[in-house]
Amino acid sequence: MKIAVIGGGSWGTALSKVFAEKGHQVSILVRRKEVALAINQKKTNPFYLPEITLPSNLKASLYPEEVFLNAEVVVWAIPSFALKEVLNQIKDFVEKVDFHLSCIKGIDFQSKKTPLTILKEFLSKKEIFVLGGPSFAKEVAQGLPTAVVLAGEKEDLTQKLQEEIAYSYFRVYRSDDPKGVELAGALKNVIAIASGISDGLGLGLNARASLITRGLVEIVRLGTKLGGKLATFYGLAGIGDLLLTCTGALSRNYKVGYALGKGENLSQILKNLHQVAEGVKTCLVVKELAEKYNVELPISFAVYDILYKNEEPKKCLKNLLSRALKKEFEDPFFVSIS
Amino acid sequence: MKIAVIGGGSWGTALSKVFAEKGHQVSILVRRKEVALAINQKKTNPFYLPEITLPSNLKASLYPEEVFLNAEVVVWAIPSFALKEVLNQIKDFVEKVDFHLSCIKGIDFQSKKTPLTILKEFLSKKEIFVLGGPSFAKEVAQGLPTAVVLAGEKEDLTQKLQEEIAYSYFRVYRSDDPKGVELAGALKNVIAIASGISDGLGLGLNARASLITRGLVEIVRLGTKLGGKLATFYGLAGIGDLLLTCTGALSRNYKVGYALGKGENLSQILKNLHQVAEGVKTCLVVKELAEKYNVELPISFAVYDILYKNEEPKKCLKNLLSRALKKEFEDPFFVSIS
Repeated sequence: MKIAVIGGGSWGTALSKVFAEKGHQVSILVRRKEVALAINQKKTNPFYLPEITLPSNLKASLYPEEVFLNAEVVVWAIPSFALKEVLNQIKDFVEKVDFHLSCIKGIDFQSKKTPLTILKEFLSKKEIFVLGGPSFAKEVAQGLPTAVVLAGEKEDLTQKLQEEIAYSYFRVYRSDDPKGVELAGALKNVIAIASGISDGLGLGLNARASLITRGLVEIVRLGTKLGGKLATFYGLAGIGDLLLTCTGALSRNYKVGYALGKGENLSQILKNLHQVAEGVKTCLVVKELAEKYNVELPISFAVYDILYKNEEPKKCLKNLLSRALKKEFEDPFFVSIS
Repeated sequence: MKIAVIGGGSWGTALSKVFAEKGHQVSILVRRKEVALAINQKKTNPFYLPEITLPSNLKASLYPEEVFLNAEVVVWAIPSFALKEVLNQIKDFVEKVDFHLSCIKGIDFQSKKTPLTILKEFLSKKEIFVLGGPSFAKEVAQGLPTAVVLAGEKEDLTQKLQEEIAYSYFRVYRSDDPKGVELAGALKNVIAIASGISDGLGLGLNARASLITRGLVEIVRLGTKLGGKLATFYGLAGIGDLLLTCTGALSRNYKVGYALGKGENLSQILKNLHQVAEGVKTCLVVKELAEKYNVELPISFAVYDILYKNEEPKKCLKNLLSRALKKEFEDPFFVSIS
C-alpha cells in the first residue's frame, strides 16, 4: 500500500524504513530540503539516523501534493506541539486519507489535548490509530527486534493495519485502547526525567527502580482518570516504554534529567539537546491535570518543582524518600484490583 | 531490639548493617569461621561486601546459642534450597522467637514450596513476614536510598515491624500479601535470565524491554494462580524488583543469562559464579507449576529449553518474536482488569 509519513525525524524515518522493507511504497513529508535530498539521493538521514542505509522504495519530499498522492495511510511522527500547526497547513491533503496512525508521544502544552483528540477534531470521520510501546528509533532502524502496540477502536480495522505494518523484526500487538496507549507514551516522559535526575545524582539502581515503580503508580492514577484502561498501563505501551525510557541512555527525557541531576541548568540543557524532550512540557500539563482531578503525584510534582521552581534536585528526591511510612497500595483504586 | 540474622551472604550482611545502624542489636549466624572473625574483628565481610565497613553493634557467630539469645526477630537470608536443612538444624532455637522475616527470593526445588510455606510448616504458631522489592545488597550496604515492601498477614504487627526496620535510606512500604511478595521475588529470576540472554545476544534495549514486559505478564499469570494478589506484582516486589534484576548487571541471574547469550556453557557459568543464581532452579519449578495450572509462559519455557534442553538461545528468542500476531491482552484475566 501507499503510506505517507509526516516527519523526517528519527522515529518517522525508522518507521518508514520498516514499512518500505515490508514492501510498501513509502513517502515522507519533511520540512528541510537537505533531509529530502539526503533521503532520496544518498539513502540516508544524516541528521537523525546517520549510520542507517534506507531502502530505495522510500522517498522524501517537501511537497504534500507528492507525499499524499494515492496515500492509504497517514503516519504522524512529529512533536506534539507541532501537530496543530501542521494539521492546519496540510488539512486539505490529509483529510482525503481514511486511515491515520499517530506515533506521537506527548500532550499539546497549549490546549492540554492529546494528539488523538486533536486529530479527531480535525479528521472527525477518519479512523485514527495509535502506536506505542518500547521502541528506540535507532534500534528499529537497525532491524533489532521490537514489539509495539497498535491501538484502534474497531477491532477488524486494527487487525488489518496490524497485518500491514508487522514485519519480521517488528512485532505488533493489537489493543482496543488508543487513549490509554497515547497517555502511557506521554506520561512516562515525566518519570523518565525523574529517573535521569536520580542517576545524575548517583542514587543507584535500587532508587531508580523504586522511582520507576512508584512513577508507574502515578501514571496509572492519572491515566485512568483521563480515560485510559488499566491493562494498557501494565503493558508494552505502559511499563514497557516506561522502563525503556527510564533505563536507556538513548532517551532524551532521561538525558535532560541526568544533566539536571549533575547540576546543569535547564535552559542550557535544552539548548544542547537539539531535539525535543516531550517530558519537559508534558510535566506542566500533568501538574495541571493532577490538580484538576485531585490525584496525588509526588514524583511528577517533584520533577515540576525542579524544572520550573528551581528546586534543588537532591532536596526534592530526599523529600520523596522521607515521607511517612505507609502501605504500598493505599488508595481504594489499587485496593480494588488487589 | 535484638535481631538475629541467618546468613552471612551479601543480603544478610547488608540488612544487618541497616538494622544495626538504626540502633538494634544485631547478630548474624554464619557458617564459616573466617566470615565470623572478619565481621567481628575487622568489621567487614570480605567475601561478599569487601568495601563496606560494618557498625560495631553488629556481631557474627557460628553458634546459635549466641545468635538467638534474647532475639525478638529472626531474619532469614539464606538461599532457598538451604532453608529446610538449616531449619532442621536450628529448629529448637528459632521456635522460641515469635517474629520471623523471610528475605529469601526463591522456591525450594525439591518440595516446590516457597520459603513462607516451609517456614509456616516448621513454625506454625509464629508470625512470618516477607521482605521484597528492588534491593541490590551492595547498594543497601552503601547506604543508597532503597524502597522495599514488608508483607505480613496482620496489619498491626506488620506496621510495628515496619517501624522497627525502616531507616533514613531504607524506606519500607507495608503490604498484606506475603505470598505475592515472595512469589514475585522468586518468579522474576527466570525472566532475569531471559533478559540476560537477550543482552548477551545483542538484541538491544527494545527487545529487552518487551521481554521484561511480557515476562511480567507470565509472572502475573502464574503468581495469581499460586495465590499472590495482582497489585503486588505491579508494585515494588513485582515490577520494581523485576526491572532492577533484568537491567542491572549486578544480578546473578542476569549474568547467567548474559553468558548463555554469549554462547557459554551452563555448567561452566555456574562454576564461575561462586554464588547461587536462584532462577536456574526456579525455572524447573515454574515449568512444572505452569503445566499443572495450565498457564502459558512462552518466555519462561524458552529459558527452560535453553537451560535444560540445550536449545540455541538465538533460535528460542527468535521463535518468541515470530509467533502469530495477536492482541496484547488476550486472556480473560487481563480483559477483566482492562
